[in-house]
Amino acid sequence: MKECVVARPRDRIVGTARSLFHKLGFRGVGVDTIAEEAGTNKMTLYRHFDSKDDLIVECLRSAAMEARKFWLDIEAKHPNDRRAQLDAWIGLAAQALASDCRGCDLTNAAVELTDTDHPAHRVIEEFKAEHRNWLATVCAGAGVVRAELLASTLTTLLEGARVARQSAARQSPSVDFAAMAAAVVESFRRKPSR
Amino acid sequence: MKECVVARPRDRIVGTARSLFHKLGFRGVGVDTIAEEAGTNKMTLYRHFDSKDDLIVECLRSAAMEARKFWLDIEAKHPNDRRAQLDAWIGLAAQALASDCRGCDLTNAAVELTDTDHPAHRVIEEFKAEHRNWLATVCAGAGVVRAELLASTLTTLLEGARVARQSAARQSPSVDFAAMAAAVVESFRRKPSR
Repeated sequence: MKECVVARPRDRIVGTARSLFHKLGFRGVGVDTIAEEAGTNKMTLYRHFDSKDDLIVECLRSAAMEARKFWLDIEAKHPNDRRAQLDAWIGLAAQALASDCRGCDLTNAAVELTDTDHPAHRVIEEFKAEHRNWLATVCAGAGVVRAELLASTLTTLLEGARVARQSAARQSPSVDFAAMAAAVVESFRRKPSR
Repeated sequence: MKECVVARPRDRIVGTARSLFHKLGFRGVGVDTIAEEAGTNKMTLYRHFDSKDDLIVECLRSAAMEARKFWLDIEAKHPNDRRAQLDAWIGLAAQALASDCRGCDLTNAAVELTDTDHPAHRVIEEFKAEHRNWLATVCAGAGVVRAELLASTLTTLLEGARVARQSAARQSPSVDFAAMAAAVVESFRRKPSR
């Protein structure tokens, strides 16, 4: 019953494409290579996806879905404890930074796909807004002042740290997200001095 | 004496390449288009640059030089006043964000050029470290606590905001760099609560 455990061609194509796009960039790999690496062929790829752009969009949707599972896991692990959820989010973000030097696929796609009409941009924008809004809800429940501004600051800081992982030296202080995030959160917990 | 005011071919090539790379990405434009747009030809381009990669490195060096002039201007405008220099840096960064949706060329290059052996990466890393270190000197003189951490936080926040300009909606709170930076600086000016 080997067929039961082997991924379907469509899933293999998306999995392989995600892995190759992550490593080589969205413009750095073509459909021929993706089809070959996925153990299939271009004709099968085009049966499932209208174009490379269509495949890119599907890969980004898949990456977004994975990230959402992270947030659900955080909520499930720390039910009704927004402060612990905030700490867990910072911890997981720092872990992701430490283990992967290529950053967020959705952000990388936004930089690489310079045509702002590319359908990927809508998926990216929606996901980024969703992420920030989820964190704002967490911050609001964690007893910090100016929860909206803190959520924007933390997500922007994470964007910066993930991109700095590619633009700065690995040991650069700019990638020490945990220290920066902790300092920012701590300062938002205190009342403004005026 | 028209020749006196017309840029030399090498300068025209670099200027045109910077503009096209900025708009279309480093992988999104070839040497043929660059040569044509610069009003020259591929042979002349290759007389000045060994390869497209060599031209990319020169473009990044030119972008770095331009940024350094910004810092020197800030220092010249606010001599011996590090606090005013810090505020000016935040203001200029916010202005750059408002006027340009494609972010920092050096960062975009780091994301696009996935081969970490590409000579561009050394130029990018050196520049990013220099920028952070300059800001750390400014912060230290501006009477903030934990100047090193503040400089890392602010430069990372700027990286994030510039990339969010591409990955998030234009009016997204994540790109409101001035508000986030002001909140962070204000919190670093106060003494830690413990």
